[in-house]
Amino acid sequence: MKFLHNIGRIEAFSDAVFAFAATLMVVNFDLDTDLTLSKTDATGFLSFAVSFFVLVALWWAHYNFFRRTKYMDNVLIALNALLLFVVLYYVFPLKSLVHSWMGEGVKTKEDLSNLFVMYGIGFSLIFFCFSGMYFRAYKKSKSSEKSLNLYFYARHFAIFVLVSLISIVLALFGFGIEFGLPGFFYALLGPLCYLHSKQFYKRYELN
Amino acid sequence: MKFLHNIGRIEAFSDAVFAFAATLMVVNFDLDTDLTLSKTDATGFLSFAVSFFVLVALWWAHYNFFRRTKYMDNVLIALNALLLFVVLYYVFPLKSLVHSWMGEGVKTKEDLSNLFVMYGIGFSLIFFCFSGMYFRAYKKSKSSEKSLNLYFYARHFAIFVLVSLISIVLALFGFGIEFGLPGFFYALLGPLCYLHSKQFYKRYELN
Amino acid sequence: MKFLHNIGRIEAFSDAVFAFAATLMVVNFDLDTDLTLSKTDATGFLSFAVSFFVLVALWWAHYNFFRRTKYMDNVLIALNALLLFVVLYYVFPLKSLVHSWMGEGVKTKEDLSNLFVMYGIGFSLIFFCFSGMYFRAYKKSKSSEKSLNLYFYARHFAIFVLVSLISIVLALFGFGIEFGLPGFFYALLGPLCYLHSKQFYKRYELN
Amino acid sequence: MKFLHNIGRIEAFSDAVFAFAATLMVVNFDLDTDLTLSKTDATGFLSFAVSFFVLVALWWAHYNFFRRTKYMDNVLIALNALLLFVVLYYVFPLKSLVHSWMGEGVKTKEDLSNLFVMYGIGFSLIFFCFSGMYFRAYKKSKSSEKSLNLYFYARHFAIFVLVSLISIVLALFGFGIEFGLPGFFYALLGPLCYLHSKQFYKRYELN
Repeated sequence: MKFLHNIGRIEAFSDAVFAFAATLMVVNFDLDTDLTLSKTDATGFLSFAVSFFVLVALWWAHYNFFRRTKYMDNVLIALNALLLFVVLYYVFPLKSLVHSWMGEGVKTKEDLSNLFVMYGIGFSLIFFCFSGMYFRAYKKSKSSEKSLNLYFYARHFAIFVLVSLISIVLALFGFGIEFGLPGFFYALLGPLCYLHSKQFYKRYELN
Repeated sequence: MKFLHNIGRIEAFSDAVFAFAATLMVVNFDLDTDLTLSKTDATGFLSFAVSFFVLVALWWAHYNFFRRTKYMDNVLIALNALLLFVVLYYVFPLKSLVHSWMGEGVKTKEDLSNLFVMYGIGFSLIFFCFSGMYFRAYKKSKSSEKSLNLYFYARHFAIFVLVSLISIVLALFGFGIEFGLPGFFYALLGPLCYLHSKQFYKRYELN
Repeated sequence: MKFLHNIGRIEAFSDAVFAFAATLMVVNFDLDTDLTLSKTDATGFLSFAVSFFVLVALWWAHYNFFRRTKYMDNVLIALNALLLFVVLYYVFPLKSLVHSWMGEGVKTKEDLSNLFVMYGIGFSLIFFCFSGMYFRAYKKSKSSEKSLNLYFYARHFAIFVLVSLISIVLALFGFGIEFGLPGFFYALLGPLCYLHSKQFYKRYELN
Repeated sequence: MKFLHNIGRIEAFSDAVFAFAATLMVVNFDLDTDLTLSKTDATGFLSFAVSFFVLVALWWAHYNFFRRTKYMDNVLIALNALLLFVVLYYVFPLKSLVHSWMGEGVKTKEDLSNLFVMYGIGFSLIFFCFSGMYFRAYKKSKSSEKSLNLYFYARHFAIFVLVSLISIVLALFGFGIEFGLPGFFYALLGPLCYLHSKQFYKRYELN
């Protein structure tokens, strides 16, 4: 016997996790600064702002996925749970990271390499979840035009995973660490996604 | 291909952020006082009460915006995220501020001036977001009577932004700091909004 | 121009506040005990249990109000905000209170008297909000049978307020403090509510 | 006079509790580690991962219950509140437990026995709530096929309770503690649930 999935609850659960994480960041921030706020240093503000808007951006990507499909099954629930896990695990230290990084800077080449590897893993895991969710929804989708759209985003986020994996390899072999190459490598996302989008629209004759 | 926006999720995300922020305030408060509550000083109570009801008032303004329009797009989502950011950033220290201010009072003219500038910026940013959201919804709205209503509120909250900007300038130049002039300047909101409302209703022949 | 109220958002905001408060209690609790849980003392468990179920009971009363009426206006929103404020303000220290009370006991008559006054005020404020919300919804309600039901609960919770006010007066004048009389006085709620219910059903010929 | 239950609010309340608990775990985790994340030890990561996914699994079981029935009454609300209470009470120390256990290992046989008893109680209480909720919904359900499904899960989760109760007894009498027998005993859940499912499907001729 089949029971309908209740997408609203999965959204509500995810929303609460995102909202809570965003709110907790400002609380930790409050503890770091002194009472009057008048001497708040730019570091604290920026570290909070960066992690808050990274979280909101991820929430937005999540929100868009659930707008684009009404398909839901246990595989999607599992991918969604993995996504929330990776987001929580990586975004919280991100704030402290920005904070400490602006305060003192990263000292050694090895530290920088570690950093690129750690955040590369987080980045690739997050977009692996998104890509997987779109791919799963695409596979199970009936309507032809909608499913193409889901397929597009599955490939779109797969590019994110690919780029971050190459960046991790670069960082592991210390290739161009002194110029921050593994970091700048993410700039490739722009042109790659543009090319993919153009080629995709051409092949399937969309507009 | 177009997908419908899911306003419910944006509301749920915002509600969760407001609710957590409100709840977290009482938690911090709990840590400041001793266990039995019988010796709770008026300062702690007032600082919690002020920040809780400021948050509820902002939630209420947010709630009213979403009642007045069903329009939603990515610009509104971005403005909403900025609004939540500013609210979190300013309301948390507000509690500590009231707490410390009642305990000792602000000592120097410069501190007071800083305070007016800091909170003026927060105030103007919050109402800039509200005004912007109403303006965006007005621009995109179809039905004529509803859109007039949105236009009214866009201008209404623009007055808030204007008044706080002038108050910031007064505080920056130390004009009338000794009498708390930049603070009392906010009292102008009452008559200004009344005049605006009267003039607006007259021009568009509403009642 | 009139806009519909969105009761769902007020419920969502309140739910998040209640849920968050309930969750935060177990977190604080976690910090008080040692890691292995095997030596968790009965005090810690009981103090968490008491405050958790008090919160759930208040959530339940709140839930029932919103089941019984679909009426909503700004007065109800304000009463609801006041209710959440009082709940947060009183329930958090409740846990520490139970914890410390079981650990050492209240030492002096004066402490006990203070306690009864403090919690009497919280109790009466909470049920004043509930009574007020029911009364407001009753006043504005159209359908005759439903409105009678709301009137019943408005009076029902008014009894709670009355009993706690008398208990506060008893505690203030130290009347029977040594026997815990102001506390036992709450036991009157049972027979009083029973009598009220019987008399109410008789007068309005309900069954 | 009867009022409809609002299942959405009970789900929202529960979702918020689960979501906060999951988020709070990563926050505590953040405090334990140093700022740069590069030296995060495997222990911290695993303890967070275990408790996060235990929480998500319990949320999933909860989610499935509400998918399978639309019945709701005050008994179910009470069982749900008890479930949330036990989940919060047991899952939070679980993280510290995994953390400390991986760090040093459990030292004495007695400690291990205590552990099995404590977590056995938590396990049995959680699934007692689930079993009770399914049983209640089954008793009150009208449609015949749906009610069979609810009956199946009531019995399914009753097996969980039974197995954990036997494991508790084993641990109390120190039977096979040195081999971790009370722990491995939970492996019986697999075959037992399989047998139950087969026998149940046969008797009621489902497929």
